[in-house]
Amino acid sequence: MKKDCFIIKGDIVYSESKTELKEIKDGYLICGEGKSLGTCKRKEEIPEASRDFELYDFTGKLIIPGLYDLHIHAPQYAFRGMWMDMELIEWLNSHTFPEEAKYGDREYSEKAYKIFVRDLLKSPTARFCAFSTVHRETTELLMDMVEDSGLKAFIGKVNMDRNCPDFLRESTVSSYEETLRWLEDTEKRNYKNVRPILTPRFIPSCTDELMKKLGGLIEERGLALQSHLSENLSEVEWVHELCPESENYGDAYERFGLFGGHGNPTIMAHCVWSGDEEAKLMKKNGVYVAHSPSSNNNIASGIAPLRKFMDMGLNIGLATDVAGGSTVSVMRIITDAIQASKLYWRLVDDRKKPVTFPEAFYLATVGGGSFFGKTGSFEKGYEADILILSDEDIPTAIEGLSLSERLERYAYIAGDRPVEHKFVAGKMLF
Amino acid sequence: MKKDCFIIKGDIVYSESKTELKEIKDGYLICGEGKSLGTCKRKEEIPEASRDFELYDFTGKLIIPGLYDLHIHAPQYAFRGMWMDMELIEWLNSHTFPEEAKYGDREYSEKAYKIFVRDLLKSPTARFCAFSTVHRETTELLMDMVEDSGLKAFIGKVNMDRNCPDFLRESTVSSYEETLRWLEDTEKRNYKNVRPILTPRFIPSCTDELMKKLGGLIEERGLALQSHLSENLSEVEWVHELCPESENYGDAYERFGLFGGHGNPTIMAHCVWSGDEEAKLMKKNGVYVAHSPSSNNNIASGIAPLRKFMDMGLNIGLATDVAGGSTVSVMRIITDAIQASKLYWRLVDDRKKPVTFPEAFYLATVGGGSFFGKTGSFEKGYEADILILSDEDIPTAIEGLSLSERLERYAYIAGDRPVEHKFVAGKMLF
Repeated sequence: MKKDCFIIKGDIVYSESKTELKEIKDGYLICGEGKSLGTCKRKEEIPEASRDFELYDFTGKLIIPGLYDLHIHAPQYAFRGMWMDMELIEWLNSHTFPEEAKYGDREYSEKAYKIFVRDLLKSPTARFCAFSTVHRETTELLMDMVEDSGLKAFIGKVNMDRNCPDFLRESTVSSYEETLRWLEDTEKRNYKNVRPILTPRFIPSCTDELMKKLGGLIEERGLALQSHLSENLSEVEWVHELCPESENYGDAYERFGLFGGHGNPTIMAHCVWSGDEEAKLMKKNGVYVAHSPSSNNNIASGIAPLRKFMDMGLNIGLATDVAGGSTVSVMRIITDAIQASKLYWRLVDDRKKPVTFPEAFYLATVGGGSFFGKTGSFEKGYEADILILSDEDIPTAIEGLSLSERLERYAYIAGDRPVEHKFVAGKMLF
Repeated sequence: MKKDCFIIKGDIVYSESKTELKEIKDGYLICGEGKSLGTCKRKEEIPEASRDFELYDFTGKLIIPGLYDLHIHAPQYAFRGMWMDMELIEWLNSHTFPEEAKYGDREYSEKAYKIFVRDLLKSPTARFCAFSTVHRETTELLMDMVEDSGLKAFIGKVNMDRNCPDFLRESTVSSYEETLRWLEDTEKRNYKNVRPILTPRFIPSCTDELMKKLGGLIEERGLALQSHLSENLSEVEWVHELCPESENYGDAYERFGLFGGHGNPTIMAHCVWSGDEEAKLMKKNGVYVAHSPSSNNNIASGIAPLRKFMDMGLNIGLATDVAGGSTVSVMRIITDAIQASKLYWRLVDDRKKPVTFPEAFYLATVGGGSFFGKTGSFEKGYEADILILSDEDIPTAIEGLSLSERLERYAYIAGDRPVEHKFVAGKMLF
């Protein structure tokens, strides 16, 4: 039996295109060396060379690609689902910042991050991009824990040197130096699954001087970057006051070389209030939209113009944005994205058609997956991120549901449940 | 030990007012003869006369009133969470009507309704108002099953004599005669938990002649009534074409005496597009709004002006509207209502403040509960509908959460899970 080679049998569903699902009832997914070697409908169609691969028989279960979470705050997981009756800035100051301050303490961080990693492991997420806090040491602790879990992630130590409480504010110098030290530490650790990502929290929390230094780092080392963009109207106005010379919020990053382009993978969370110029700049620079409908709803930010971004051909993935979002499951975000797009169509712009289930599924898989490489599909050559979902226990009198009906139903009514098995890059995590 | 008398110990939360929760950590809820005799903080405060009541010790668990679902379609539960990429009229014709037609068959109905009643029993719902289908016999079957479950409900045989497929359309005469027969059968059965409720589906599906006859029945017998109102823009336009003489959709019911008033309890589901005049008529006639944010979102209907209705002092309860809504849990509808109100405030009218968690909880308990009598609270004299919720297994590093924080968190992240125990009118169902 060849090493790292296996075949999965079950009810396979993945995106055939941006608008269509491919369904293979009782099909076979063939994997070798961490990648998909393709799928087939019948046993006889399995290529000669793969016939002796180990078979995982998941007959009757749904087999789908891993889901990808482009934006999540690890330290906020501890207060998911609470303190929801407020807007962004009030929410940051009254609860979020005081809670994040606790991550200066190693013991507290260990307890909290253990829960976070364990729940994420059980969730449909295969790979993700996370914020930690300003604290270098516990950021490294989180990276160690994720590395050990087998999940793959970009994780970023947060930079903040203004407009936040004293107990969290770094000096410009120490923010930069701690970032350098963190990058060095990370390099020494030779992680297989985890990579660092530069993480200036957002324009209001970083001085120009710090941003310039981070821009220099990006140019020097070609790092990935994640931040927030045009989430909330008061925040957008605030950025306009802070950076009167910038055309828009995106441009305020662009001026420091922190808005993609030059081959630097960049994610901006939210983009609820991104106008056409900002969106065009994202398109030009290949910046990813981390679409976070659940969070945008909870913090009363609004609805991002998802269909516009799709029509413009932007890079888009879905995101839970815990704890603005209260679920760690990107499966739930699929249905939240659909629901948000329906309300956008109805209440904001009736030329922007609601997003369909297959479209939202594509964003959750191939869309967000592309940030991490060739992931999110079972087409030949994609990395083998695979979820086994159990839906046999969801009762209905209706017989003969199609695989896409079962998957849609699972997303709407069982999206929060743990997956049954998960493979990342061909490795079975459980 | 006195019959039907007991005390529940645990972490008690219920609405103290429309905007505030009352929290009693490790408190006592005293019940007798199906009603609350009040709550207290310490054992010593339990009145002398109640000291020998049986004690249920649920220390550490959340104890809240039952939730009430003012609008749910029992036959649609079989396809919850599927076929979501369409609007109301298309959704009715392509999937809903063909599926409802199956309820002419007793065997299919038995299979489907068994699942419905079993899942509803496990859910937070204590009492509900349900549509069945046009079929009298299987409506009675459903009523029998709900009666046996111990849940309390108003259940209505649907009337439809126009604008629906032949396989579901009744003649005007048979629709009326079957309704009479159903009311007689129901009376004979001497139900304790279940009551009939007149259920003309909506204006487009009932001729004037049928509506007149139903209006006569209401006048004669003082029956309750449930229907749909101003759900979707195309539907509202359609009603305007069908009833050009009516001031608004509500008035189209009012002309037949089918819009409350005269002491007839009346529920109208949705009210997404109800203008001020329609809302005033509802207020005048005491008509209940069954607010169904999840369904309104899924079928792309829009967002109902909940804050307006609250400010006007209308009768309001929450509703799942399965299968426009995909969850049977009113706990989830609490958070959906909050989220919808935030988007309404942000996108439609910034004078209409988002609804808070305590406000939405009030609607789910006392608000909807009042339709069934004095239910939804633990104040003395309210019927003892009680839910025991388990949240000890939701891990967090944060210590010392308040009861309202725990309840909010439960609603956001565990709203779909089965409750641990349920009492209705003082009877423990499980």
